[in-house]
Amino acid sequence: MLHSLAGRAETPLQARLLALLRDTGPLSRAQLADRLEVSRTTVAAEVARLGELGLAEETGPAASRGGRRSTMVDLDASIRFAGINVGATGLSVAVTDGRLGVLAHRAVPCDIKQGPEAVLAIALRTARQLMTEADVDRLVGVGIGVPGPVDFHRGLPVSPPIMPGWDGYPVRDAVSRELGCPVVLDNDVNVMAVGEQHAGVARTAHNFLYVKIGTGIGCGIVIDGELYRGADGCAGDIGHIRVDDFGPTCACGNTGCLEAFAGGAALARDATAAAQAGRSEILASLLTDKGVLTAADVGTAVSQGDPHAVQLIRDSGRRIGQVLASLVSFFNPDLIVIGGGVTALGHSLLAEIRGVTYRRSLPLATGSLPIVLTELGDHAGVVGAARLISGVVYAADQGRIP
Amino acid sequence: MLHSLAGRAETPLQARLLALLRDTGPLSRAQLADRLEVSRTTVAAEVARLGELGLAEETGPAASRGGRRSTMVDLDASIRFAGINVGATGLSVAVTDGRLGVLAHRAVPCDIKQGPEAVLAIALRTARQLMTEADVDRLVGVGIGVPGPVDFHRGLPVSPPIMPGWDGYPVRDAVSRELGCPVVLDNDVNVMAVGEQHAGVARTAHNFLYVKIGTGIGCGIVIDGELYRGADGCAGDIGHIRVDDFGPTCACGNTGCLEAFAGGAALARDATAAAQAGRSEILASLLTDKGVLTAADVGTAVSQGDPHAVQLIRDSGRRIGQVLASLVSFFNPDLIVIGGGVTALGHSLLAEIRGVTYRRSLPLATGSLPIVLTELGDHAGVVGAARLISGVVYAADQGRIP
Repeated sequence: MLHSLAGRAETPLQARLLALLRDTGPLSRAQLADRLEVSRTTVAAEVARLGELGLAEETGPAASRGGRRSTMVDLDASIRFAGINVGATGLSVAVTDGRLGVLAHRAVPCDIKQGPEAVLAIALRTARQLMTEADVDRLVGVGIGVPGPVDFHRGLPVSPPIMPGWDGYPVRDAVSRELGCPVVLDNDVNVMAVGEQHAGVARTAHNFLYVKIGTGIGCGIVIDGELYRGADGCAGDIGHIRVDDFGPTCACGNTGCLEAFAGGAALARDATAAAQAGRSEILASLLTDKGVLTAADVGTAVSQGDPHAVQLIRDSGRRIGQVLASLVSFFNPDLIVIGGGVTALGHSLLAEIRGVTYRRSLPLATGSLPIVLTELGDHAGVVGAARLISGVVYAADQGRIP
Repeated sequence: MLHSLAGRAETPLQARLLALLRDTGPLSRAQLADRLEVSRTTVAAEVARLGELGLAEETGPAASRGGRRSTMVDLDASIRFAGINVGATGLSVAVTDGRLGVLAHRAVPCDIKQGPEAVLAIALRTARQLMTEADVDRLVGVGIGVPGPVDFHRGLPVSPPIMPGWDGYPVRDAVSRELGCPVVLDNDVNVMAVGEQHAGVARTAHNFLYVKIGTGIGCGIVIDGELYRGADGCAGDIGHIRVDDFGPTCACGNTGCLEAFAGGAALARDATAAAQAGRSEILASLLTDKGVLTAADVGTAVSQGDPHAVQLIRDSGRRIGQVLASLVSFFNPDLIVIGGGVTALGHSLLAEIRGVTYRRSLPLATGSLPIVLTELGDHAGVVGAARLISGVVYAADQGRIP
């Protein structure tokens, strides 16, 4: 890439050193000096300073490399983060160590429509339970993901379509006050992309897209290893790309949005219509049994060989593939990860998305482009949220973290 | 943005200091120390070293700021770059100083289909003429743009659709051998984006798109001030986004590409068809006079009030706007610059592009998004090419440049 940013501030040594320990594990002072391209004296001084801050510690002599033995350095063993991922119908919380290893994890049902006070009370109660179980006194930071647009810098949701009562609610500051530590708030897709980068299939990817297909559809964008948010923080909002001039009304109020054709809510709507119109016996019978159909029921019907359900999945995959093909031509990513609830429908959806994306993109851009399902499932969001706050804490110019 | 790149190498002080002088002009040693966040002693030592390399020089005492006078520093006055931008039917060459000020510029007609040897001979002859006119003995670097996909790292075109004979030709190394200096090769849209960033409307933009609408359609992507090339170097290839399942055959061999509906070649084709079918008297009369119609003739017909020509421009703008609306939802840029030959058609095309893009994108992403015409015209390519090589030269870890 063209390095042209005259006078740009450097990433401080502290942040690089702590992120290196987080992402690769304990290293000797000699290895740190090599990887960070600074002298061993500089590393020794920095490690001593980070030790006083309670962020890093020396853990004993390294294995001999022939000469004088170096000293192993690790993140302070007492560092604890929490990651919270709030979804439309449930939330997940994890407590992690400094390297984002999950020490305790719990998913609880919870309707986002209850509003921020009720939902955050459940999240905080769950976090405190996990802290007790994992014998954690204090957290050094908390990351939170929510299913809607977020003003990252102010730490609050902005006009989120499916989160009544949350618009402008100071989520970050409220949680920070309750738990007495720094908090970051981001949207759920960004948090999942970061989790996938830290612990999933995107570990070695540089420029990748994390496409979440849940009730709605969204995209997390990672460029050169860093989350890309765009000029107004709303980059990746592909669910509302207009794929047709007409079509069903979307949750956002417009017509023709990808999400209104192809998200989980759209699948449930179309499956219900097919059941009611007598186009699918299997879906009709599921509707009679359950009273309401979800995207998962379409998967059930597919597994029972229902041709109409297969067609619904294909139509959905085709619309998503058309949008992804355009994004591949524009962005030329090295990986696309598909996640979200609808991935439980399995490989028939993925096969259709893959087929359309490859067929409609340029050969040069898709020659070596993997399109894969997430491996992390529910853990992507909480680990990603913890990683977001770890980046903030490790880069902070501070004394001992409050 | 999330700073998570553990152990990433820092941009060297030399590169940051020289880029700062290039982009802002002469600065005092005190100002350099402030802007680069290093000590004055470090600046003094670095400037002395760069003086020996022939890259920077001290130019006398700075205006007093009350205390001891600082010393002014500038780029070495003898630094000369050349920028070469090769188009389908002509090429432009400029010789610049170290701050990319144009000292001499010439555009010459030249058919890219003549192949690399003939075209590069014309480019080299033109460059040498300009060097003589501007009294330049030697160039410290040359940047070149060509209208097709480029393997940036190997410095050669890769399967360029409109450049017969150029596939795999070692353009960078051939020109480097002839002129005895470092050379970079990139595609024309990328060099224009960089030129617009250096000297045009994109000077203050961070994440912007430069959309070239010429014979074909392409897009340069700048992220956080740096050119983004994607995993395989083909990011921004929006001309071949499929906008319809059917449609005219594209130069790339596929059908349904944006470029085949809306580029300059498509406009010329549709105008010719309209003239021949008797749908437009004005276009028919232009065709009789000239024997062949171009996109510019559509502009002429519009200026004479021809409704069919107006419709052609609207259809083109609508297709382009549809694609840009998707990219705005995905990328959330802070600026879109429209350039290329078809911009000579003026504001009727821009108005249609703007209308469709704003109407079909999310309010949050377009609330403060300017979509503007380039101000640089022919200079964008040559200045951008010179800037690309300046970044390489200023960052090079080297003795005096060969």
